[in-house]
Amino acid sequence: MGNTFGQLFRITTFGESHGGGVGVIVDGCPPKLAITEEEIQFDLDRRRPGQSKITTPRKETDTCEIISGVFEGQTLGTPIAILVRNKDARSQDYNEMSVKYRPSHADATYDAKYGIRNWKGGGRASARETIGRVAAGAIAKKILKQHNNVEIVGYVKRIKDLEAVVDNNTVTLEQVESNIVRCPDSECATKMIDLIDDIRKEKDSLGGVVECVVRDVPKGLGDPVFDKLEADLAKAVMSLPATKGFEIGSGFAGTTMTGSEHNDEFYIDENGETRTTTNRSGGVQGGISNGENIVIRIAFKPTATVGKEQRTVTNEGAETVLAAKGRHDPCVLPRAVPMVEAMVALVLCDRLLSYYGQCKVLDS
Amino acid sequence: MGNTFGQLFRITTFGESHGGGVGVIVDGCPPKLAITEEEIQFDLDRRRPGQSKITTPRKETDTCEIISGVFEGQTLGTPIAILVRNKDARSQDYNEMSVKYRPSHADATYDAKYGIRNWKGGGRASARETIGRVAAGAIAKKILKQHNNVEIVGYVKRIKDLEAVVDNNTVTLEQVESNIVRCPDSECATKMIDLIDDIRKEKDSLGGVVECVVRDVPKGLGDPVFDKLEADLAKAVMSLPATKGFEIGSGFAGTTMTGSEHNDEFYIDENGETRTTTNRSGGVQGGISNGENIVIRIAFKPTATVGKEQRTVTNEGAETVLAAKGRHDPCVLPRAVPMVEAMVALVLCDRLLSYYGQCKVLDS
Amino acid sequence: MGNTFGQLFRITTFGESHGGGVGVIVDGCPPKLAITEEEIQFDLDRRRPGQSKITTPRKETDTCEIISGVFEGQTLGTPIAILVRNKDARSQDYNEMSVKYRPSHADATYDAKYGIRNWKGGGRASARETIGRVAAGAIAKKILKQHNNVEIVGYVKRIKDLEAVVDNNTVTLEQVESNIVRCPDSECATKMIDLIDDIRKEKDSLGGVVECVVRDVPKGLGDPVFDKLEADLAKAVMSLPATKGFEIGSGFAGTTMTGSEHNDEFYIDENGETRTTTNRSGGVQGGISNGENIVIRIAFKPTATVGKEQRTVTNEGAETVLAAKGRHDPCVLPRAVPMVEAMVALVLCDRLLSYYGQCKVLDS
Amino acid sequence: MGNTFGQLFRITTFGESHGGGVGVIVDGCPPKLAITEEEIQFDLDRRRPGQSKITTPRKETDTCEIISGVFEGQTLGTPIAILVRNKDARSQDYNEMSVKYRPSHADATYDAKYGIRNWKGGGRASARETIGRVAAGAIAKKILKQHNNVEIVGYVKRIKDLEAVVDNNTVTLEQVESNIVRCPDSECATKMIDLIDDIRKEKDSLGGVVECVVRDVPKGLGDPVFDKLEADLAKAVMSLPATKGFEIGSGFAGTTMTGSEHNDEFYIDENGETRTTTNRSGGVQGGISNGENIVIRIAFKPTATVGKEQRTVTNEGAETVLAAKGRHDPCVLPRAVPMVEAMVALVLCDRLLSYYGQCKVLDS
Repeated sequence: MGNTFGQLFRITTFGESHGGGVGVIVDGCPPKLAITEEEIQFDLDRRRPGQSKITTPRKETDTCEIISGVFEGQTLGTPIAILVRNKDARSQDYNEMSVKYRPSHADATYDAKYGIRNWKGGGRASARETIGRVAAGAIAKKILKQHNNVEIVGYVKRIKDLEAVVDNNTVTLEQVESNIVRCPDSECATKMIDLIDDIRKEKDSLGGVVECVVRDVPKGLGDPVFDKLEADLAKAVMSLPATKGFEIGSGFAGTTMTGSEHNDEFYIDENGETRTTTNRSGGVQGGISNGENIVIRIAFKPTATVGKEQRTVTNEGAETVLAAKGRHDPCVLPRAVPMVEAMVALVLCDRLLSYYGQCKVLDS
Repeated sequence: MGNTFGQLFRITTFGESHGGGVGVIVDGCPPKLAITEEEIQFDLDRRRPGQSKITTPRKETDTCEIISGVFEGQTLGTPIAILVRNKDARSQDYNEMSVKYRPSHADATYDAKYGIRNWKGGGRASARETIGRVAAGAIAKKILKQHNNVEIVGYVKRIKDLEAVVDNNTVTLEQVESNIVRCPDSECATKMIDLIDDIRKEKDSLGGVVECVVRDVPKGLGDPVFDKLEADLAKAVMSLPATKGFEIGSGFAGTTMTGSEHNDEFYIDENGETRTTTNRSGGVQGGISNGENIVIRIAFKPTATVGKEQRTVTNEGAETVLAAKGRHDPCVLPRAVPMVEAMVALVLCDRLLSYYGQCKVLDS
Repeated sequence: MGNTFGQLFRITTFGESHGGGVGVIVDGCPPKLAITEEEIQFDLDRRRPGQSKITTPRKETDTCEIISGVFEGQTLGTPIAILVRNKDARSQDYNEMSVKYRPSHADATYDAKYGIRNWKGGGRASARETIGRVAAGAIAKKILKQHNNVEIVGYVKRIKDLEAVVDNNTVTLEQVESNIVRCPDSECATKMIDLIDDIRKEKDSLGGVVECVVRDVPKGLGDPVFDKLEADLAKAVMSLPATKGFEIGSGFAGTTMTGSEHNDEFYIDENGETRTTTNRSGGVQGGISNGENIVIRIAFKPTATVGKEQRTVTNEGAETVLAAKGRHDPCVLPRAVPMVEAMVALVLCDRLLSYYGQCKVLDS
Repeated sequence: MGNTFGQLFRITTFGESHGGGVGVIVDGCPPKLAITEEEIQFDLDRRRPGQSKITTPRKETDTCEIISGVFEGQTLGTPIAILVRNKDARSQDYNEMSVKYRPSHADATYDAKYGIRNWKGGGRASARETIGRVAAGAIAKKILKQHNNVEIVGYVKRIKDLEAVVDNNTVTLEQVESNIVRCPDSECATKMIDLIDDIRKEKDSLGGVVECVVRDVPKGLGDPVFDKLEADLAKAVMSLPATKGFEIGSGFAGTTMTGSEHNDEFYIDENGETRTTTNRSGGVQGGISNGENIVIRIAFKPTATVGKEQRTVTNEGAETVLAAKGRHDPCVLPRAVPMVEAMVALVLCDRLLSYYGQCKVLDS
């Protein structure tokens, strides 16, 4: 279980890093949305390995094929199946890992749970699994764009202790894509790239923080109690590999303020809209979007698979050491940006459909 | 929507702060579990208002009634309905709020979404809604206890910038309950209590961090991809009112380490079990529990409703000011502890049942 | 599990026949629907025991209380909890059944599954459980009425081999309610009543067929593949106690026709609408409503609990005999009519919300 | 929506009759089940077109590829994706249908709901969609076989008014597969084949009844209230194309009996098991399996697409006539047999996993 996400705009992903391929079924997509493989490929290319010197050198084009659900360029309302074949499989890199558990990786827990695992690559625990999410996210983004011109911009906020300065009201996709680390603060980006390149040479890895802003969110998305928008966003991004923390709005820093300092006071803007003067809420109040920018941050740990030798154990209970072979990212954050955007888009699209389902039937 | 949580151990809560009452339906509970209203009441009493000078003075006993699903002291396997009647309703305190939106509260977003809200108290957005969660959590805790002696201990880790020192291997419920702020570091607790008492007098409020440790978790709970254990835990606690952030294991701090520093190396313990020397993973690897302590932290913002005067607007679009009346918590954290424990218990219990559903059928 | 029904308009029922009460949580209800306890009570009164000489003499008023989700006469969009207390409990009637399994009842299977059962009355397997469905159905009916003037009329079509002649285009609730057996063919109704009264005196029971027509259904409800409208309707009514069969449109009789005889030819009506000249499809084609009358039939077996002596076994594996005491319906069909209507309303309301969720977002 | 079925053993199908292919994702499958493409192909071959003179001459081998979820011949516990490419596409046969609605087919309702449809073949409404179900069903059957030696045998019970005599205690797959109409009564089978061959020549079609028996079902499968086993079975098979009715056990015929006649009396068998002397319940009591044979019957209407000329309308609202081209089944029942078996297997497997999820956790 656990391979389906969303209630109305619902995706199911499949595939291991080595095997026939990976992909996604998107169910519940509104009909008559114009969508092409090229639009989906755009985000897949931002996610794919081998895109720069600071990502894994594993070469995969990750070319997607729409198998079903689209007819003459438009969605049918039926399930959209998207398949990406696996290509560059050097499974011999993994022979050692068939018996040795990589520290802080999923090898040991998969064996504990299932009694079996695909040890060629990360199997289902590989970041390759996120291809299906990113493909589905591209469709969700287009729906949000078409509905209310919603704009989702993710970027690398921090690598180790190098933190970028970014204005969430103005940051653009173009700025994010202007460098290989996906940090719109170009000065900081240069330092980040150097830092990652250095750690790569040391056969070690780095972590950091991705921030994501969503602008022009309709009011009313998210539901009270368990499906609060921040709860669904937290689940969405914490389901990405290597995540260790989540914040919305003021986050952990906000806990050191008093209530009167922290509250976002209301005012009426020039269009008569209820707005807030500040946005410590991060665009969500009572679990429901209030129309301000949604702002979240996600902590990504340093990549678990490193070339340095480490103590570990075998699947037969013997202690040993491992210096991982294979081709791995020295830092997942540049490739994590489109993953975060995709998960945010999936949540918002799902809640948008849910909003129509509950609140528009008696309007008409 | 959004009032149901869990897949196999599934709860549905209902009720507003003012009206007939609040409660929960627990579906999927294993049969023949011994459970009493007293056991449930124990956690409800830890959650109820009026329990100390640093919580809201609103007086409610929050006495629970089991309506169904339990027969001669044992669960039937059918839905357990638990009802708590509302009692101490001083809705006149809220007359002003029928037109004025409380800053950083749910008033404005509920109106935007539904076009209607129960303005007497917080309605469905009141923390009173968590009664159902805590009641259901008491049942989940008992199942986990009975199954594997699983122990869940939540506590107040930080208030504003007062941070407690706590050993997660040894901290007990008794230590947590030994003071009214629910901080097992008694020296720090005294300071916290004073700080909260001071802010109360200033008609302002404070936030902080709750930490929760789970010991003796079976290996194998949680599912790859979307239902990773950390993702479900994040959603669970981020669905509690006033939360702004979530961390598991090393959290945001872990992002400044290198991979070789951060990884939890494996060893074989005296019982032949695969264990880790450190626990930066927080008990979860690849989305699945590895048997080490699960450790999470949750950021709670300062209570939104404060007695200080603030700028706001009315539901008719006029700017105004509001100094909230009513009886509110100067700091939600002491009462949030049992809520966090309940949400953690619900997730673990649900994943335990799911584990049996998928992985035990062909064993037998 | 199994106590929740529906995806967007989602109900969860609870309660046993003996114990604190029974009821329902309705989640996902559109906000600002005017609804009163009286409107709900109307259908509950059609369902309640003791309403006539041909139903069980058990006396219960089944008075409902709306606990939450309705504020000043309107739905809030939050969960609507409805509670009906149990009153007329003569559990001494059931002492014998604590050890003896009633043939063709749920006693033995509950014990086999759960290892425990509430033997006072039918417990969760009692028809009393349907109170929650009927209450929720009253709300669903009102939404459908308000949305498109949808009209749902159920009635007793056949008792044993007495079959009524009814025109589905014109039959009204008033005609159905004009006699105690709920058969709009008054001549046939009289015979049915006599037949049931006779079997009651013989301490035996009867079965039959309920038919239900839905008029003015919007086109487009129901979804391809697994959630075809006929599949959801089948599940809905086959989840009622004592059901053995389901038909839509031509049903089993349609299987003896050829395709060219059976097909519903299309024409364009005076309003330019695509219509069919016949309705062997029963209002559904390809799983989706086509705007014609939805017509279904449900087979109800004779009541399992009879006063006549029968061979059975005890829960300890001994053979014995049982002549059931207690107060039971000689024929469930008159009381089943509002249950069938409720289940049909729940399905249609859920699919209506789902239709808006998927198909209206990009329209606006 | 509507393309996912099951709660724990959960399948999601995709694909249209013309386009890249069709297939299924199976989520929640127990790990370490040995399964091969050959085992799946066996049932696909029973379903595929062109298998005999009484099925559509459309030639497709329907060769399946397992894309993921199986490693070295065993299931991983991760999603099993199975893809069947479309091959024999003669979409020119369908040009006329791009504007003309086939009577009693899904063309008009898809257009009404989605405003778009894949008119090449039946699109998503094609019986080709059932490939995914049959493939998943083969896996479910193997789990049931391995768990408790559960045996599922479907067969053609009736074509038009030719009804077979079959003993459900002894009927075997081999008998069913011994002739092309899949009727184990060989004398009756011969007549059925002739009847279908005749109607084929007349460019018309026939319907009938499929019966399915399940032997050696564990007690305890199915859940009270909405997920009663008969309700889930009804939904499962009524979601197959062309179904008009469902019966379990005594079905509609049972409604003419009295309770004392209809009830299945209990006895204790030689192994001390609680059994019933008759089986009018069809293996299910109170929604839960009682260990007796599960027996269901499904009404299939005559194939809607016929070569005879019929009155219809265009998608632009003009009246016209249509004599369908394309290659269609004169009678769907022989190919429906593996579809019914698959749906029954999916329900039972899902309920088996659910039973372990709820009822085995506190046993161990």
